[in-house]
Amino acid sequence: MATDLEIARAATLLPIGDIAARAGIPESALQPYGRYKAKIDSGFVAGQAGAKRGKLVLVTGINPTPAGEGKTTTTIGLGDALNALGTRTMICLREPSLGPCFGVKGGATGGGRAQVGPMEDINLHFTGDFHAITSANNLLSAMVDNHMYWGNELGLDPRRISWRRALDMNDRNLRDLVLGLGGASQGIPREDGFDITVASEVMAVFCLATDLADLQARLGRMIVGQTRDGRSVTARDIKADGAMAALLRDALAPNLVQTLEGSPALVHGGPFANIAHGCNSVVATTLGLTLADVVVTEAGFGADLGAEKFLDIKCTSAGLAPDACVIVATIRALKMHGGVAKSDLGREDVAALRRGVVNLARHVENMGKFGLPVVVALNAFTTDAGEEIAAVQEAMAALGTEAVLCTHWADGGAGATDLACAVQRRLAAGSASFAPLYDAALPLAEKLRTIAREIYRAAEVQIPEPVAARLARFEAQGFGHVPVCVAKTQYSFSADPKRLGAPVGHVLPVREVRLSAGAGFVVAVCGEIMTMPGLPRRPAAESIGLDAAGRIEGLF
Amino acid sequence: MATDLEIARAATLLPIGDIAARAGIPESALQPYGRYKAKIDSGFVAGQAGAKRGKLVLVTGINPTPAGEGKTTTTIGLGDALNALGTRTMICLREPSLGPCFGVKGGATGGGRAQVGPMEDINLHFTGDFHAITSANNLLSAMVDNHMYWGNELGLDPRRISWRRALDMNDRNLRDLVLGLGGASQGIPREDGFDITVASEVMAVFCLATDLADLQARLGRMIVGQTRDGRSVTARDIKADGAMAALLRDALAPNLVQTLEGSPALVHGGPFANIAHGCNSVVATTLGLTLADVVVTEAGFGADLGAEKFLDIKCTSAGLAPDACVIVATIRALKMHGGVAKSDLGREDVAALRRGVVNLARHVENMGKFGLPVVVALNAFTTDAGEEIAAVQEAMAALGTEAVLCTHWADGGAGATDLACAVQRRLAAGSASFAPLYDAALPLAEKLRTIAREIYRAAEVQIPEPVAARLARFEAQGFGHVPVCVAKTQYSFSADPKRLGAPVGHVLPVREVRLSAGAGFVVAVCGEIMTMPGLPRRPAAESIGLDAAGRIEGLF
Repeated sequence: MATDLEIARAATLLPIGDIAARAGIPESALQPYGRYKAKIDSGFVAGQAGAKRGKLVLVTGINPTPAGEGKTTTTIGLGDALNALGTRTMICLREPSLGPCFGVKGGATGGGRAQVGPMEDINLHFTGDFHAITSANNLLSAMVDNHMYWGNELGLDPRRISWRRALDMNDRNLRDLVLGLGGASQGIPREDGFDITVASEVMAVFCLATDLADLQARLGRMIVGQTRDGRSVTARDIKADGAMAALLRDALAPNLVQTLEGSPALVHGGPFANIAHGCNSVVATTLGLTLADVVVTEAGFGADLGAEKFLDIKCTSAGLAPDACVIVATIRALKMHGGVAKSDLGREDVAALRRGVVNLARHVENMGKFGLPVVVALNAFTTDAGEEIAAVQEAMAALGTEAVLCTHWADGGAGATDLACAVQRRLAAGSASFAPLYDAALPLAEKLRTIAREIYRAAEVQIPEPVAARLARFEAQGFGHVPVCVAKTQYSFSADPKRLGAPVGHVLPVREVRLSAGAGFVVAVCGEIMTMPGLPRRPAAESIGLDAAGRIEGLF
Repeated sequence: MATDLEIARAATLLPIGDIAARAGIPESALQPYGRYKAKIDSGFVAGQAGAKRGKLVLVTGINPTPAGEGKTTTTIGLGDALNALGTRTMICLREPSLGPCFGVKGGATGGGRAQVGPMEDINLHFTGDFHAITSANNLLSAMVDNHMYWGNELGLDPRRISWRRALDMNDRNLRDLVLGLGGASQGIPREDGFDITVASEVMAVFCLATDLADLQARLGRMIVGQTRDGRSVTARDIKADGAMAALLRDALAPNLVQTLEGSPALVHGGPFANIAHGCNSVVATTLGLTLADVVVTEAGFGADLGAEKFLDIKCTSAGLAPDACVIVATIRALKMHGGVAKSDLGREDVAALRRGVVNLARHVENMGKFGLPVVVALNAFTTDAGEEIAAVQEAMAALGTEAVLCTHWADGGAGATDLACAVQRRLAAGSASFAPLYDAALPLAEKLRTIAREIYRAAEVQIPEPVAARLARFEAQGFGHVPVCVAKTQYSFSADPKRLGAPVGHVLPVREVRLSAGAGFVVAVCGEIMTMPGLPRRPAAESIGLDAAGRIEGLF
């Protein structure tokens, strides 16, 4: 069996100008980065504003399991299939983070015959967007510490700096540190730490900004810390917003690449899906909708986190109204939700599948609450038994939802033709009536309770008194209208990663709340959330290298 | 008077393919980065190997003063002038560091009408080379800490990790820190710090590597720390060399840009000139020599540090033999060497000039010791008096050296025609007989004494006993043959920045020595050397931003 890297290398990519032409982008609007990647001129992007013509399809998933689901491959396969059917389709994906490439997770450019390329480039530095975000993040940090060093006119409390540094690296040793050591000329000692770049608020801001002016305004609103008397100090107070916007100027232009079958794909931005909203940039999605008849995009994690945030944060912020939703599941993953251990997944087990399909069913119901028609994509494995597949289709039929078997991993777009046809039927029916889950005017705690009740089906939300007081303070500061971004485990509807399937009666414990004033949401942290991953005992980096021809080996 | 940024913006750059054609590079060998920057395919670079045809001209300077000398502008102006005279010339420069752009120093793309462009791009992220170097540096750090975290098979002593993290940022708070805090799952607490990326050994390795294989071999030799029993542990022991080379693969391809007059320029690599050798990459210089009749390149700081390292480290490492040397001076700077305060430089003062010209004279003599013919470039200011200029020319004539007045800052290449003609005459005479200052077989301490005696004219080199023992250990480890890279103040021939002119009788105190085993030199630290700059009270970043058209303002 060919590896993803081997398939990627065997593919012949088209010159990026040809892909742009297919997408309706003139060559003159391209800023090429090598022969197979390009940024799209901000002038062209601005000129397209308001020219929306396409329909928006969100690809989301069941709660992820170690068995794997394949949201990215399905997004790519669906896009290829739609293009093959003659529907002009743009794929919108997140950019992979560099850090995890050297750990265990590997890259994020799809797999099998459903990939975007050039694979090595996209997974490593790509067009430098994340490096620009890292630089902007750390310039703000340097300016905050420099401000305190030179007299601290703004009266920042060194113990209350909430702005952390960032690096696109899995590096646990940077999580907690004390810096500014070494004497009076070396800065002011204080506690700090690094988050991985995708967890930076700059990333969230970058992905929600509609243009450069909005980007700078959002950057300026970001809160870096508090004074002793509790006043918030912003990046604008530090006078860092202009230089940060300058660092991010080129990065904000969306990146055009292609699938192995020559479909255009905008791969741009990639915030964490726990402490941020987990979708590609608004700039890319909005541009895609002006160019294509259909935009297929994905959200991080399962639909309880990823789709909910896509819909309640990204879509409300950018004024987007999706037209359909695809929920990806696999027989194997559903059996895990039904209690089967990973080692036993090769065995047919219809009973376990019926127990586990409740996870999928709840996500399908939930998407209905947003007014979205749903198609289920069953991402095929060779071990799937016919009876198992039938059992899923039966369960979905009971909900009025089609579950379509897909083989895009093995067959590329041709393996997702049925899925594409099902999506086309849903789009043609025009039955979507998108509405966010809650009204912006609700109090923050009520928004949180609405998500917990309607999406997670929790019996109760525990908001300790200090957390409630903090929410009240955010509201008093004028941030009551923003959506709530829940950071909890992605593995369960509940806050307990072990409660698979469709748990009920659980409690959502809110540990703390944070205001992302630039991104425009309040993060509710429910459980241990890791914002700087570590490397495993045997990091993938140990096997990555160059072959004799200078090609990169060991990336996966 | 137009600012550098205004002049840069008013210029019309040619498509980079046109510049490549002028330089003899086929379009097919370009990896464009936007319309005005390109990387040159490593395949093309490899195919050129051994096809040297050009002569190599080094631009260096007197000891720098706050009055400014203009090495980069002179390098650019000379290149433009040579091209205008019909000599096919390639300019080879260092890439600017991002960090100083936000501090006081500003960018490093020349000035006036002697600039390379696109100015904002080159000064900010350019083609991402420095970000790749930062990533490679920090991947090694993460893998070192990760190795200790998971059991420390190699027995690294956490107190003896010499490998530091890096960031391309001026950020004094990162100089000294304690990381790995927060408990057993957060890593192993230890002291560490960040250097600015240009001070990383990865940068030095990158600039000395001849190709990808050499790059990986050098990366693998880099020492990260010691075991308790004093064994050195390398990046190869940590198994980081392959992944680091993968991260640097694209970066190692040289960057092609252009001057405002359309001369091709390779801008690639940029190591510190104190703890490293301070020149652009070997790959770029070597490539330039296969394409052009003349390559004009510059070295950092004054000739005592920059040229000496260019000649004894870069040239010996890469087998380059320069053909001529240009030493840049200004009347104003020479008057400062003669004791005039910066505020009084506008006043004609021939006596001070005669006192200060000894600095220039000594550098001219020194270059002769390497067998290089010298031309002095007098970079004109409007305040220069005719008598002052004549006094310099007279002093140089006494040494058999031509001193040519240049006005390239104001007039572009046309202002450096006389300089170009003088250089052409020296090249035509073919009088160069380059030899490094010392033999590779000399003991390390003797190499250091030779530099101090012949170049700095020090009366004595103080090598404390522990330092001498360390040098002996390096020799025992098989590193006796490498050159010595002196890290001392750039402002004086001595180790005291206040001793301007041409001091004699001074002592060179060697504080410590470090082995850069991958770069292949021993650093002798003579004085306080800053490897992570700080920001000033009012950082330039506060004034940097975007104008209404999305153009970057405030960069200089």
